[in-house]
Amino acid sequence: MSMHQGRERLVVVGGDAAGMSAASQARRLKGPEELEIVAFERGHFTSFSACGIPYWVGGAVPERDDLIARTPEEHRARDIDLRLRTEVTELDVAGRRVRARDVESGAESWMSYDKLVIATGARPVRPELPGADAPGVHGVQTLDDGQALIDTLSRAKGRRAVVVGAGYIGVEMAEALIDRGFEVTVVNRGEQPMSTLDPDMGRLVHRAMEGLGITMVNGTEVTKILTGADGRVRAVATQHAEYPADVVVLGIGVRPETALARAAGLPLGAHGGLLTDLAMRVRGHQNIWAGGDCVEVLNLVSGQEQYVPLGTHANKHGQVIGTNAGGGYATFPGVVGTAVSKVCDLEIARTGLREKDARRVGLEFEAVTIESTSRAGYYPGASPMTVKMLAERRTGRLLGVQIVGREGAAKRVDIAAVALTARLTVEQMTALDLGYAPPFSPVWDPVLVAARKAARKVRGS
Amino acid sequence: MSMHQGRERLVVVGGDAAGMSAASQARRLKGPEELEIVAFERGHFTSFSACGIPYWVGGAVPERDDLIARTPEEHRARDIDLRLRTEVTELDVAGRRVRARDVESGAESWMSYDKLVIATGARPVRPELPGADAPGVHGVQTLDDGQALIDTLSRAKGRRAVVVGAGYIGVEMAEALIDRGFEVTVVNRGEQPMSTLDPDMGRLVHRAMEGLGITMVNGTEVTKILTGADGRVRAVATQHAEYPADVVVLGIGVRPETALARAAGLPLGAHGGLLTDLAMRVRGHQNIWAGGDCVEVLNLVSGQEQYVPLGTHANKHGQVIGTNAGGGYATFPGVVGTAVSKVCDLEIARTGLREKDARRVGLEFEAVTIESTSRAGYYPGASPMTVKMLAERRTGRLLGVQIVGREGAAKRVDIAAVALTARLTVEQMTALDLGYAPPFSPVWDPVLVAARKAARKVRGS
Repeated sequence: MSMHQGRERLVVVGGDAAGMSAASQARRLKGPEELEIVAFERGHFTSFSACGIPYWVGGAVPERDDLIARTPEEHRARDIDLRLRTEVTELDVAGRRVRARDVESGAESWMSYDKLVIATGARPVRPELPGADAPGVHGVQTLDDGQALIDTLSRAKGRRAVVVGAGYIGVEMAEALIDRGFEVTVVNRGEQPMSTLDPDMGRLVHRAMEGLGITMVNGTEVTKILTGADGRVRAVATQHAEYPADVVVLGIGVRPETALARAAGLPLGAHGGLLTDLAMRVRGHQNIWAGGDCVEVLNLVSGQEQYVPLGTHANKHGQVIGTNAGGGYATFPGVVGTAVSKVCDLEIARTGLREKDARRVGLEFEAVTIESTSRAGYYPGASPMTVKMLAERRTGRLLGVQIVGREGAAKRVDIAAVALTARLTVEQMTALDLGYAPPFSPVWDPVLVAARKAARKVRGS
Repeated sequence: MSMHQGRERLVVVGGDAAGMSAASQARRLKGPEELEIVAFERGHFTSFSACGIPYWVGGAVPERDDLIARTPEEHRARDIDLRLRTEVTELDVAGRRVRARDVESGAESWMSYDKLVIATGARPVRPELPGADAPGVHGVQTLDDGQALIDTLSRAKGRRAVVVGAGYIGVEMAEALIDRGFEVTVVNRGEQPMSTLDPDMGRLVHRAMEGLGITMVNGTEVTKILTGADGRVRAVATQHAEYPADVVVLGIGVRPETALARAAGLPLGAHGGLLTDLAMRVRGHQNIWAGGDCVEVLNLVSGQEQYVPLGTHANKHGQVIGTNAGGGYATFPGVVGTAVSKVCDLEIARTGLREKDARRVGLEFEAVTIESTSRAGYYPGASPMTVKMLAERRTGRLLGVQIVGREGAAKRVDIAAVALTARLTVEQMTALDLGYAPPFSPVWDPVLVAARKAARKVRGS
């Protein structure tokens, strides 16, 4: 592939999960005498768990460094030439080179590559709001963000926190702030929290969060962030009300960070993420791979590309990219849309399509919802669990599952995740041989109860 | 089908999970004007959870009646003519009738049927040992057994208990006896406890049980149960030693109760269970169904019949039988061999084939074992989890998974249960979109870590 004789150079842009997994895996397959690996990261850290930040802020995870899976030194010890605080400012695809800038000094230089990995991640959505940059307003995407928020929380004069957004980050940050002893208000544009669930399931989350003492404000846009005489945040304003705030956390979500790729003319999808083939190669480019939060992924249920920024996918992408860039062969076939979360002891899980997703791609479906318990009803600690299941009309193919409950609700969704991957019908699912013992499940697992009801509805009896 | 005009009669032999589920489901489909349903049960109870008995004995479940899913009165209120304490003593298949005996009075009479359901369950293996019937020696299959054991435990003069057998019943009873404040010794014929696991995984259970203060004696046959001057048990003898015992619990397992079926010439398999077709009809008999602990089931991984007495299968069988006997259509495609259990906070799970099962059916395989954690390593409460995975040579098809760990180990096996059903390869499994968030899983779920290692071994790289 390469025009060079001898050693090739792999350049990685972005030193987090996808990029550094790719670098590590490529290094596993090819030694430094065959492959030079240079990784550019504009921040201070590599390979950290962004998903863990809410638990660090909340205090469950004691130290920032607990979230770092592999340090820069560990990467360098494996002959990866990692350059921190170095931002790639331009991709020259025709010239097979990138321009890198030292963030401290501003010095720029070009570096050529034989193989390129784009792992530029995501950037948080910052609302175009007056006051959004005021002291006391925080995002939670990076470790620096997390530290800044922790500092604010420690110094805050009052104990009132407002979270803007009620997706995964929003609900997890609500828990973290409760754990830090704050009174929490969540202001949410959607009809219910967790818009990745159907609203009827989101309502269960809403109720449970209110039960935890969180003030939930749904269906409301934030119009302004108000500051006091000291310039710090003092309240969040909506069209109808003002919510006093000593600290504001923005949990509105993220978008793919693809400005570089866009400028270089690389193919982007409808959600703004890079488009790749199954080997995670950027479409049309044999020697460029992309993965993690800057790419779109194929949803195997809808058959369409989707944007799913999630650490577990980023790690898989990195593994696949590193294998291919290292001369092996691997593919990432796609996702089924699994995600799990919790707010205190409430567990929330989803996989596959929501009602509106199914409609959008032309699928007609039956939807059922059942109530069951996490353990045999007579076993101590059995707690309620609600399972919603969607199945395609006529074929009965499973389309999606959403689960809200306490202990054991979240990971139960894995049953459906595998069933979606295997394209099982709900009728087939009724016969699944799932683990049963009274401490772990009723004799009919909640997922089986839902499958039975869905199967009856599909066959109309 | 029937020669009768008008209403047909369905006779059910055995009033536990399979039999009464079948009766209930048939009743749901056909009202009493179309279908008469008569159910014979030789015991005092119907539809109870035998799996729950250890937790009742241990005290976690307070009342016997908590284990009864549906009372005789509830069945009768749904027009099921339930006859307790009535034992069926003969099946006359040619004459389409059964002979029933009132256990109290000894009175016998014949009852004809149009459709018959055999759900005679299992009988516990009682060792042919001197002293096995002595007071203080208990089985734990029925509610009466459980009550008798609880009475013995309450009155016991000492606190030494010996459990014979270290399968599911044995380990669960060991926990129950610890919970009741007994010193527990488990005497086990096998090399390790839990012979449904490979010995290397059984060893982990052995160690954990010892860590709980249980004395484990493996590889040893009980030769005699010794009694004192009062005729009550005083010790359990093996070839090498005597273990003092104030109470002995036999947990050696069960065999299909098929004496009636055998006498009637119905087809039995190699394990002594009835053989059925996929609609749970006894092979060669259009109007006789059988289900629950008296039948053999097809193992979808090995392709051979297996004996798996488990409440969850019994309930599914009953559902399928009742649907078919009620004029509908349903099948039970088979099992993959999933089972979960726990001893205190140690969770044990298995599905598919062990190494010796695979060898027995001619499958060559690669086996891998990995260590991971239940949650992200940095998240509080993360506990170790060991996953063993077997994959077929060449095809890479998943053959089996065994998991031993703490929280979250047991139900994780469901991922593999669905994958086995769908005949996924371990390579396919590496891309499974499983739920990830730090409180629930490392970024690579332990099952994915095992699948990656197995896939590497299958492809030899």
